[in-house]
Amino acid sequence: MAKVLTPRAENYSQWYNDLVVKADLAETSAVRGCMVIKPYGYAIWETMHDVLDRMFKQTGHQNAYFPLFIPKSFFSREAHHVEGFAKECAVVTHYRLKNDPEGKGVIVDPEAKLEEELIVRPTSETIIWNTYRNWIHSYRDLPILVNQWANVVRWEMRTRLFLRTAEFLWQEGHTAHATAEEAMEEMNRMIGVYADFVENYMAVPVIKGYKTDKERFAGAVETMSIEAMMQDGKALQAGTSHFLGQNFAKAFDVKFANREGALEYVWATSWGVSTRLMGALIMAHSDDNGLVLPPRLAPIHVVMVPIYQQAAQIPGLVAALQALKVKLENRGLRVKLDDRDTVKPGFKFAEHELKGIPVRVALGPRDLAAGTVEIARRDTLEKQVVDMQAAEQVIVDLMEEIQRNIFVKAKAFRTAHTVNADTYDEFKAALDGGNFVMAHWDGTSETEELIKDETKATIRCIPCDAPEEQGRCIRTGRPSARRVLFARAY
Amino acid sequence: MAKVLTPRAENYSQWYNDLVVKADLAETSAVRGCMVIKPYGYAIWETMHDVLDRMFKQTGHQNAYFPLFIPKSFFSREAHHVEGFAKECAVVTHYRLKNDPEGKGVIVDPEAKLEEELIVRPTSETIIWNTYRNWIHSYRDLPILVNQWANVVRWEMRTRLFLRTAEFLWQEGHTAHATAEEAMEEMNRMIGVYADFVENYMAVPVIKGYKTDKERFAGAVETMSIEAMMQDGKALQAGTSHFLGQNFAKAFDVKFANREGALEYVWATSWGVSTRLMGALIMAHSDDNGLVLPPRLAPIHVVMVPIYQQAAQIPGLVAALQALKVKLENRGLRVKLDDRDTVKPGFKFAEHELKGIPVRVALGPRDLAAGTVEIARRDTLEKQVVDMQAAEQVIVDLMEEIQRNIFVKAKAFRTAHTVNADTYDEFKAALDGGNFVMAHWDGTSETEELIKDETKATIRCIPCDAPEEQGRCIRTGRPSARRVLFARAY
Repeated sequence: MAKVLTPRAENYSQWYNDLVVKADLAETSAVRGCMVIKPYGYAIWETMHDVLDRMFKQTGHQNAYFPLFIPKSFFSREAHHVEGFAKECAVVTHYRLKNDPEGKGVIVDPEAKLEEELIVRPTSETIIWNTYRNWIHSYRDLPILVNQWANVVRWEMRTRLFLRTAEFLWQEGHTAHATAEEAMEEMNRMIGVYADFVENYMAVPVIKGYKTDKERFAGAVETMSIEAMMQDGKALQAGTSHFLGQNFAKAFDVKFANREGALEYVWATSWGVSTRLMGALIMAHSDDNGLVLPPRLAPIHVVMVPIYQQAAQIPGLVAALQALKVKLENRGLRVKLDDRDTVKPGFKFAEHELKGIPVRVALGPRDLAAGTVEIARRDTLEKQVVDMQAAEQVIVDLMEEIQRNIFVKAKAFRTAHTVNADTYDEFKAALDGGNFVMAHWDGTSETEELIKDETKATIRCIPCDAPEEQGRCIRTGRPSARRVLFARAY
Repeated sequence: MAKVLTPRAENYSQWYNDLVVKADLAETSAVRGCMVIKPYGYAIWETMHDVLDRMFKQTGHQNAYFPLFIPKSFFSREAHHVEGFAKECAVVTHYRLKNDPEGKGVIVDPEAKLEEELIVRPTSETIIWNTYRNWIHSYRDLPILVNQWANVVRWEMRTRLFLRTAEFLWQEGHTAHATAEEAMEEMNRMIGVYADFVENYMAVPVIKGYKTDKERFAGAVETMSIEAMMQDGKALQAGTSHFLGQNFAKAFDVKFANREGALEYVWATSWGVSTRLMGALIMAHSDDNGLVLPPRLAPIHVVMVPIYQQAAQIPGLVAALQALKVKLENRGLRVKLDDRDTVKPGFKFAEHELKGIPVRVALGPRDLAAGTVEIARRDTLEKQVVDMQAAEQVIVDLMEEIQRNIFVKAKAFRTAHTVNADTYDEFKAALDGGNFVMAHWDGTSETEELIKDETKATIRCIPCDAPEEQGRCIRTGRPSARRVLFARAY
């Protein structure tokens, strides 16, 4: 199997596209901007779903389901939402097809026009808060801690598999609270859940912080995000959590009677992550041979390959591998025995590397006679020959070791590519070098916009842990109280 | 808590609507025909999802995800599909909104018109087979055993929560095979999986059989279904599995090279169940007090209520219940301790009955002193006082007993309401009596149509286990080789 991926150094963007398609994760479809998520890619997303869903339930949330469609007029109800939110949406105007009277095929029935157009949800704040009006009457009905797993559509002009697609899968939490403090706590809790998931399951280190006014979600009072570094030094926003204040409660007239019997508007949060996380996972760890998957999200943990010259050798090799397979499965690992006789071991090895299977076990007649087995790890490509009796424990330990190692490696990479800049020249050079840049900024949207226009860098966030430090804005020289995180971003 | 449901005997249809809303399962939304599935209802659907998903994986299937939208022209590709399939679909014609220049709010941007309209998927055969063309080249690529969990939209004019909604949630399996035999086996396997699920988890007995030409899925060569009886004697189609022959392969030009190297069209199946199953679950078992849920699908298995006159009694009662709760949770049961002090026990009892919680445990000071506890089962409404030490095992056993009992009850009801009819008068009387009717039919679509027009009954299926029996069609008197299942249906 020849090298199938464009090397990262040659063209990072092409490498990513090659990888997504060649590793059978996703592909483009006949519908512009919409992707097909293939079984191998979907299996990773399913595991993400299951882990996150458990985390949401552990923090007291329940799932529900709201309509795919939103009446057009709902978007105008919250002024900032309609102003700031992209208007590229799929619009449903008719509800019937009919046979084309002039030939074969079908046409849209002009008589089946909707009175009010429906928008395929780009996000569900409006339809959900319209629903909450009937669910909330008193403080006893609060908090409402609801999450939805759903598809959403944003009519993006330039799309890339997983990173930016017209339709994508996501979850959106929408909570309602009696006090601002409680809602802000919820915003913080959920960005913490996301950081926990991305760091401990995806093995991608993140920087948690606050968005600037300019980058905030349309309709939010405060937006928090987690920002991850890809191998080209660009940032990818991996999750957001919003404190919506009373904006949607006011827009949809959602009030509750407090303990004293007075009516107040309800406080809100929303938070979400999407199939974009697949893009982050792929770009953070993978190499020129293919995917590198953290064991906690890998659909297959271990692949086994018998190596033989003659068919007569197969049964003995397969029996020994099968015995090890059962032991590993009993330890909770997902194991695949690749006994295809239509392709050679070298082809299989390349394919398993392309698909990022964390551990490969190879067994040949000489190993069998010697009571040994060869174990290769995907992250470092290192091989070791171990005693067959020791293999089970070695592999189980390797899972934790690989999970740890790829996180450490990604973190070291980020550390090596994060620099402080104190002048605009330093700043631009650091960006061009593929870095996260910690720099002072005067706090105005105007300067932020100016820097973006001149450098393509945006303020990814004001990190939660940014220390107070007096300085001067790299662009205007005006005073600043802390450095913020600048980067070019996906 | 007063009776909140219209009694079944008074108005079965209203009873159902009351129940769905009052038990917090689902409600209508601001979008015509689209429902909101509330957390309690969604929790039941999630369990259905999880069980079915496990069954699909155990039978070798993988999940994937295909686009929400389908290009309009795809529908015309398979002639029977476009002819027979309902044309009530949501049609996307534009991709952008803009601010209304004449005032506030947004309007559809007339300049953002799509070249080809997109249909929100009513089912995905066309887009999936268009995708499979690139996945399938040789017999080695077969079979493809893929399932998708998704939302679909059919613009129904008259909608009812869960039973018929414009948007609903479902799964759709789409498999590709090298031979007709293998595809037919798959069709049979999957209708068997559905029957297993509906009988053993939903506790609803079903009749498995073949659809007539007239009732077959548009584009299918053979359709199998499982049919369940509701308490009003009407049938509800709970799942379908289709052998599609080579129809979609031909429409989308999907060929494979067989072992001899010759090109052949691929053979297909599709199969699905939807949130309609929620309607079947509710209607099959519930009573005038509310839901009756089979333990295997109940979000909460056991609810506990402390009964006290004075606040001082609470800690002792709660401690005793808490101890039992831990024991039950260790046995895998989901237990809720209802210690609200804002409502009386009678109110709680009614609410728990409305929500169909299989077992209720009540504990008062006298029970506590005597070392006993009161256990009530939802299906029969029977109560028993048992020794606190025995309670754990009694409740665990009750789960299996209730699961078994509601199935047996539903089956006995169906048996009592299934009759043979040999004349048209008998036939009509049996239908009016709320029965499934086994009757002879001459095998023509014309007669089937005539009977439907005259009686509103349709042939639900030709049961797989219908014995050969010579007879005469109830409507035309022409010869018939076996009885088929007629009923009025949802």
